[in-house]
Amino acid sequence: MEFTINQIAFILQGKVEGDGEEKVKTISKIQDGKKGTITFLSNPKYEEYIYSTEASAVIVKSDFVPEQSVQATLIRVEDPYIGFTRLLEEYDKLRSYSKKGVEDPSYISSNTKVGEDIYRGAFSYIGSNVKIGNNVKIHPHTYIGENVQIGNNCIFYSGAKIYAETIIGDNCIIHSGAVIGSDGFGFAPQADDTYKKIPQLGNVVIRNNVEIGANTVVDCATLGSTIIDEGVKLDNLVQIAHNVEIGANTVIASQSGISGSSKFGRNCVVAGQVGVVGHVEIGDRVTLAAKTGLSKSVKKEGSIKFGYPAMDHRDYLKSHAIFRNLPELRERVNELEKKVVNLPAN
Amino acid sequence: MEFTINQIAFILQGKVEGDGEEKVKTISKIQDGKKGTITFLSNPKYEEYIYSTEASAVIVKSDFVPEQSVQATLIRVEDPYIGFTRLLEEYDKLRSYSKKGVEDPSYISSNTKVGEDIYRGAFSYIGSNVKIGNNVKIHPHTYIGENVQIGNNCIFYSGAKIYAETIIGDNCIIHSGAVIGSDGFGFAPQADDTYKKIPQLGNVVIRNNVEIGANTVVDCATLGSTIIDEGVKLDNLVQIAHNVEIGANTVIASQSGISGSSKFGRNCVVAGQVGVVGHVEIGDRVTLAAKTGLSKSVKKEGSIKFGYPAMDHRDYLKSHAIFRNLPELRERVNELEKKVVNLPAN
Amino acid sequence: MEFTINQIAFILQGKVEGDGEEKVKTISKIQDGKKGTITFLSNPKYEEYIYSTEASAVIVKSDFVPEQSVQATLIRVEDPYIGFTRLLEEYDKLRSYSKKGVEDPSYISSNTKVGEDIYRGAFSYIGSNVKIGNNVKIHPHTYIGENVQIGNNCIFYSGAKIYAETIIGDNCIIHSGAVIGSDGFGFAPQADDTYKKIPQLGNVVIRNNVEIGANTVVDCATLGSTIIDEGVKLDNLVQIAHNVEIGANTVIASQSGISGSSKFGRNCVVAGQVGVVGHVEIGDRVTLAAKTGLSKSVKKEGSIKFGYPAMDHRDYLKSHAIFRNLPELRERVNELEKKVVNLPAN
Repeated sequence: MEFTINQIAFILQGKVEGDGEEKVKTISKIQDGKKGTITFLSNPKYEEYIYSTEASAVIVKSDFVPEQSVQATLIRVEDPYIGFTRLLEEYDKLRSYSKKGVEDPSYISSNTKVGEDIYRGAFSYIGSNVKIGNNVKIHPHTYIGENVQIGNNCIFYSGAKIYAETIIGDNCIIHSGAVIGSDGFGFAPQADDTYKKIPQLGNVVIRNNVEIGANTVVDCATLGSTIIDEGVKLDNLVQIAHNVEIGANTVIASQSGISGSSKFGRNCVVAGQVGVVGHVEIGDRVTLAAKTGLSKSVKKEGSIKFGYPAMDHRDYLKSHAIFRNLPELRERVNELEKKVVNLPAN
Repeated sequence: MEFTINQIAFILQGKVEGDGEEKVKTISKIQDGKKGTITFLSNPKYEEYIYSTEASAVIVKSDFVPEQSVQATLIRVEDPYIGFTRLLEEYDKLRSYSKKGVEDPSYISSNTKVGEDIYRGAFSYIGSNVKIGNNVKIHPHTYIGENVQIGNNCIFYSGAKIYAETIIGDNCIIHSGAVIGSDGFGFAPQADDTYKKIPQLGNVVIRNNVEIGANTVVDCATLGSTIIDEGVKLDNLVQIAHNVEIGANTVIASQSGISGSSKFGRNCVVAGQVGVVGHVEIGDRVTLAAKTGLSKSVKKEGSIKFGYPAMDHRDYLKSHAIFRNLPELRERVNELEKKVVNLPAN
Repeated sequence: MEFTINQIAFILQGKVEGDGEEKVKTISKIQDGKKGTITFLSNPKYEEYIYSTEASAVIVKSDFVPEQSVQATLIRVEDPYIGFTRLLEEYDKLRSYSKKGVEDPSYISSNTKVGEDIYRGAFSYIGSNVKIGNNVKIHPHTYIGENVQIGNNCIFYSGAKIYAETIIGDNCIIHSGAVIGSDGFGFAPQADDTYKKIPQLGNVVIRNNVEIGANTVVDCATLGSTIIDEGVKLDNLVQIAHNVEIGANTVIASQSGISGSSKFGRNCVVAGQVGVVGHVEIGDRVTLAAKTGLSKSVKKEGSIKFGYPAMDHRDYLKSHAIFRNLPELRERVNELEKKVVNLPAN
């Protein structure tokens, strides 16, 4: 891409302040900006860099008032972050490795139905009775098992593994090493102390606009379906156990694990390394802070939980503030005991 | 499958109550039951659903007394859960993708010994000097390194990676993305602040009837063997470090990690996101609650540990109950100090 | 290998005590030592085994004074652990699977530059514009995306996935299932409650002498680079988010996760299951104990942090010691309240 700053401002519906005819070729972080790049200032924490950046242009908030002189040309917009994100998207389209066609060798069973504009990378595997929509990119080493259904515009990165019977909607992205539909962890204890495997006969249903991170695992249901609803975003190394349901637009950060049959409402936010016990219900817009261990249902919309066993976020912080000073509290009790012992008897 | 309820009752040695000649085609969860399905009631928590389910048949406990009228035909058995599990198994056999033969292209070194009734999926790799028993299913993208030995009736799902020298018994299941035999994390600190790799020359030994979850990692020993004993079940995303030994029939839930050289006894239960320090011993039938951090040996059979550093389960809960109310405890100490200061001096 | 004990002592510059002409064929752990093996004693915890081991030779510290009689021949050296590590390295060289050449089928784009003494395993994939140095081993099922650059003497184990644009230095080892360069977890919340993907356009830079464990994930930067500096060692199942920088010679144990844009100094030690929040700075030689949750910057060199939210290691242990006995502390407050109530009024 090579555009003048004026052209970019036109796309972003922004107002130019400085030399609008200078050309920019790529985008940069504000602290790394070089001539010919465009960057943005959204978080006030980074304001200092706008006075030293060598970037040719900086997207700023419409009401930004510089405290020192700025070399770069400014583009004033309502929300610099959203504006910059739009630029990223445009740039992404230009650089995108828009792969199409079939690389050899790849494997596809005879009884499959595949749409148009497909990329099937070398060493990708498609089992029997699979249905795939249009404009799907199946990178090398992807495995797609029997009877899987996939919508349009999906991307499977190298080494994604989709077990048999999985159903995936439109516009989904599955990153490398993610495993969808592996057996749930279900075993029946036997009288002789061994465990007997309970067959896991259900599947995984992933609705539209879902992104699943690298090396994340979503187990199939014992019966019925493990459900990842529309717009859910799972980070890397997340564990979703059998029969879990994750409500629409819920985001789950890296290394969190959701145990069997638990159900999340819509628009929840789960931070990193959270654990949720099995068979609980979580309402809409619930937030679980990092490393929280949730052992009970939280049905109240908008709850924020923290700690293990999880407490209301504020209560946890209050208790923890005293925990930090427990030696002092004990010392005060020691002192009290001395004083009270020394008091005259009744 | 299409059977009459009477036929199923005969298999389960149960007693029919209602129309035994109705036909069922598939199995369902009690809350999702439709006409033509059979389900079960084991956990009393789900009893409400038996009064509304549309399932044609419900397997119940022999002494179950309904509190309202039930539409479905009942099959009374001693243990409905075990009965239903048997049905799942039968159903699994009927639907099972019993793959056999060799898909092209796949790779097998010349100097290997492979049994009968093998499935070798496309893009599977078998290194030199490998020995494999009968009825083993090697799904696409499986990697089996040099000198590996595998027993009978094992399943390797797509993308399982078995490093050189690993030994695996009979009836084992290794899920997608599991890595067996990767190098232990061993480095010797050097005078110049760098680390030098300590060669990891041991292997992994997996005994009979072991199941290993998706994206779980079992490192090889520095010397000798990392051992996963008979009947062990590891969930997804578990970490087993070098020289660890996991005793027979121990189950370890998702995202738990066992550090180097630690040893578990038989029939332990490790919940999710547990961490165990290196070089400790855990006795038989020890339970580690979710998210526990174990930093010392626990040799007493049947111990239950919780928290970090781990405490006895009950002690942890008692302390945590007070932790929840620490602000109140501090307030009481504040009040005491005021009162004691105000008391007449000695 | 078959050497006399005298020959090994010569290599290690050690002093022999006992029969130096006995031959040893392999190495062993001290508790498993058999005739014909050599082992070592470094950790005093294992001293008891030296009096019962059947190993032919034991490497010991130069000033070791046995408390009972020892059967084995001793080799006295300054540091037995380092001496033994040297033996392991020599043994490793002798047994190493030094693979070379190309196995079929493998995939390599036309526009690539590959050095000498390369191993390209079956089903490995090399995208366009890739540059690879000399003596690189690319095991089966490895994926190397477009424009990747790789130095000399690297090893990629089966199923390693390297996304486009990644840069890797010399002497790096990437284990099975590790994913390098997957998209960072960046989404912009929209007015309609959905999230919009922020394109992740940066890359990952891995400098020399880095080892990355099995199923570990390193995300690419949104812009710029996620950086893994020289000599860093990452264990299995670690998460490194977008724009993170890990300083030279830092080691991170299994299942730890570092959130976006956080920066580590040199020679830090991160134990297992640690979580670090985004956008913080950690100084040089900082230690984070197992399961720590770090939510603030720790700039002071040599700090040791523990707990969540993280505290100074000693403070945490002091507070936790009282936490263990909170029921007793509360009882003392109860007693005090009784006594104070019973005191004569002012």
